Amino acid sequence: MALIVHKYGGTSMGSTERIRNVAKRVAKWHRAGHQMVVVPSAMSGETNRLLGLAKELQPAKADDAVLRELDMLASTGEQVSVGLLALALQAEGVPAVSYAGWQVPVHTNSAYTKARIDSIEDQRVRKDLAAGKVVVITGFQGVDETGNITTLGRGGSDTSAVAVAAAMKAAECLIYTDVDGVYTTDPRVVPEARRLSTVSFEEMLEMASMGSKVLQIRSVEFAGKYQVPLRVLSSFTPWDIPIAEEAASGTLITFEEDEKMEQAVVSGIAFNRDEAKISILGVPDRPGIAYQILGAVADANIEVDVIIQNVSHEGKTDFSFTVHRNDYARTVDVLKTKVAASLGTDRIEGDTKICKVSIVGIGMRSHVGIASKMFRALSEEGINIQMISTSEIKTSVVIDEKYMELAVRALHRAFDLDQPAA
Amino acid sequence: MALIVHKYGGTSMGSTERIRNVAKRVAKWHRAGHQMVVVPSAMSGETNRLLGLAKELQPAKADDAVLRELDMLASTGEQVSVGLLALALQAEGVPAVSYAGWQVPVHTNSAYTKARIDSIEDQRVRKDLAAGKVVVITGFQGVDETGNITTLGRGGSDTSAVAVAAAMKAAECLIYTDVDGVYTTDPRVVPEARRLSTVSFEEMLEMASMGSKVLQIRSVEFAGKYQVPLRVLSSFTPWDIPIAEEAASGTLITFEEDEKMEQAVVSGIAFNRDEAKISILGVPDRPGIAYQILGAVADANIEVDVIIQNVSHEGKTDFSFTVHRNDYARTVDVLKTKVAASLGTDRIEGDTKICKVSIVGIGMRSHVGIASKMFRALSEEGINIQMISTSEIKTSVVIDEKYMELAVRALHRAFDLDQPAA
Repeated sequence: MALIVHKYGGTSMGSTERIRNVAKRVAKWHRAGHQMVVVPSAMSGETNRLLGLAKELQPAKADDAVLRELDMLASTGEQVSVGLLALALQAEGVPAVSYAGWQVPVHTNSAYTKARIDSIEDQRVRKDLAAGKVVVITGFQGVDETGNITTLGRGGSDTSAVAVAAAMKAAECLIYTDVDGVYTTDPRVVPEARRLSTVSFEEMLEMASMGSKVLQIRSVEFAGKYQVPLRVLSSFTPWDIPIAEEAASGTLITFEEDEKMEQAVVSGIAFNRDEAKISILGVPDRPGIAYQILGAVADANIEVDVIIQNVSHEGKTDFSFTVHRNDYARTVDVLKTKVAASLGTDRIEGDTKICKVSIVGIGMRSHVGIASKMFRALSEEGINIQMISTSEIKTSVVIDEKYMELAVRALHRAFDLDQPAA
Repeated sequence: MALIVHKYGGTSMGSTERIRNVAKRVAKWHRAGHQMVVVPSAMSGETNRLLGLAKELQPAKADDAVLRELDMLASTGEQVSVGLLALALQAEGVPAVSYAGWQVPVHTNSAYTKARIDSIEDQRVRKDLAAGKVVVITGFQGVDETGNITTLGRGGSDTSAVAVAAAMKAAECLIYTDVDGVYTTDPRVVPEARRLSTVSFEEMLEMASMGSKVLQIRSVEFAGKYQVPLRVLSSFTPWDIPIAEEAASGTLITFEEDEKMEQAVVSGIAFNRDEAKISILGVPDRPGIAYQILGAVADANIEVDVIIQNVSHEGKTDFSFTVHRNDYARTVDVLKTKVAASLGTDRIEGDTKICKVSIVGIGMRSHVGIASKMFRALSEEGINIQMISTSEIKTSVVIDEKYMELAVRALHRAFDLDQPAA
């Protein structure tokens, strides 16, 4: 008997047959006595279809007036979904009503195509829930203060669902997706990878940014900020599996640091082979040098990930960083043409055949020796570490790309991630 | 330098190429200094696609909750159109902004799928027009007082356009469609049929109900009520024809009875071969007899068109009426089983091979002898008249179906409709 938010992705809403299955699943939860709010995405392919039509017509330059119309257009995809899902629920004998973002309303700023949610009014939805209705709300969209439709950007339906759950103080927000949870690492690399039954939202943030593309990172931030218990689970289970089983499946992303979480020092191994490493050797060790280098890179709109500067030796130091592999050539060019001369060095070296491997775990905060255990495991496999970067709950190393799978498997084993949780 | 409303149908909006043409046409009017409001329909086929999806999912019984969701769904078709048209206008270098019905807002009652417009607020639109923008408004839809989306029913975009024109006190509302105006009669029957440069809205009402399916009849009623000059014109002319030429094309539906209209006594010949005639002979001529007969027919949800009752002879009369041909057999059955016995007659006769031919003209009100001129023209062709029905601006006859084309041509000639207007 709780207030529950379900979120279904575009694949789950991809056909009338699938929408009927979503309706049956939601109806099951409703009949079990829960107050249900459902946030579906647009039918898969629909948003691309709409934006494709726009692309044929829109001006070359996308100013605010253009972006406003793109939101007007794209928001219809979700409106179709909520209408169809409400009808399917009614056909299941469940009273249901749908709302577009502006009807709730979901208030956002006016940053068309990438708006931020300011607040969500809950009165209208609460009234319907009290009347025994399932409420179906469009994801991905809201309304600004002058009544213009806004969208939250790609994947924004996850964020919408979490925001609605926060506003309604929902007991849990269930994100139905095409994976069955968050894993200790990618099962394609480590067959022994285990599904985590819980993960902290901070770990999830680190995992998500490292390439575990399970959830929109913004939705995780939102869940953390408003302390919304968030569960990622599979939409491919039969709709009629027992609720108790379904409610315990997937991975719960929690904001509370319970005891169990403290026990698991490292929760997962993330990796990423999309990066390239660049080093400038023999840089004079004087104030402002980092800005001099990275300012030029930022000016070229290139994002930098890991940054390392070593202690100096005889007034000279080595400066290294990683960028996306696609930006490698351009970055080297920027350094050679705009930075090298003023630094008095042209010793710029780079390597695109690297990868980044990270151990992530909220327990690292209170445990010493985790990083050195990581380094030992890698050294036992003969893997040379090129760069090291650490944060509170993550330690990353840059290594030769060819060792990636070996490193991930070694670390997965070293931290006992292939063993069932205690 | 006037405020002009353009309305484009689904065919005109049927592809991005066609939408681009609409944009070019509107841009031409905008550049000539007019304040432009545009009301486009959904892209052709889109509303059917959406309602087709709904049909697969919706409950068997369409209660209010179901109809509400159908409106939620169907209204997206027009929202896509306004977004795309606004983008195409922007690409033409014309500032443009689109609004859904709820954003204007267009206030309606809550009769989902067939709502009536209560009022339209004009402040937001006026502000944009004053700022030099073209305003694109969804047809077919509005919002009720509790913020639910409503639709006006099929063809409602014509009505939306006229209602917007009325609210904005537009100089003229131009309905672009796939015919180039209102004709004296169907050119397929009478090759000499002429396009009317003007027609009164009352004549248009009679023409429309007789089968000249140029405009939604509700939109014509609306135009009459709010005295909106309405022009029907072709969307197939090149977008870059001179404005003066375009503005004088098609047919202007006026609410003022100017001199010119008084001169044209008969404006057009309408006809309809979808009806069947039914007579009950030897009916006792006593009060309540018409109700006794037609009440039973109405109870069976059968619509009746022409109704004739002759003067009685020896306390008996003959009672005749026409129904849609599809309802003929059912009507005869109702009469035989539910009416005949109590009337004391079983002399029920019918004929499905009839047609109705009408002359329509606002000038008939002040001219005598028009009907007899009609009857003479028919008699000169040897056409027997089976039923006659008259109203203020229309005289209809029911004749043998095989004479239909002959009758229409004879009347067209008799009333000089093939001659250029004086």
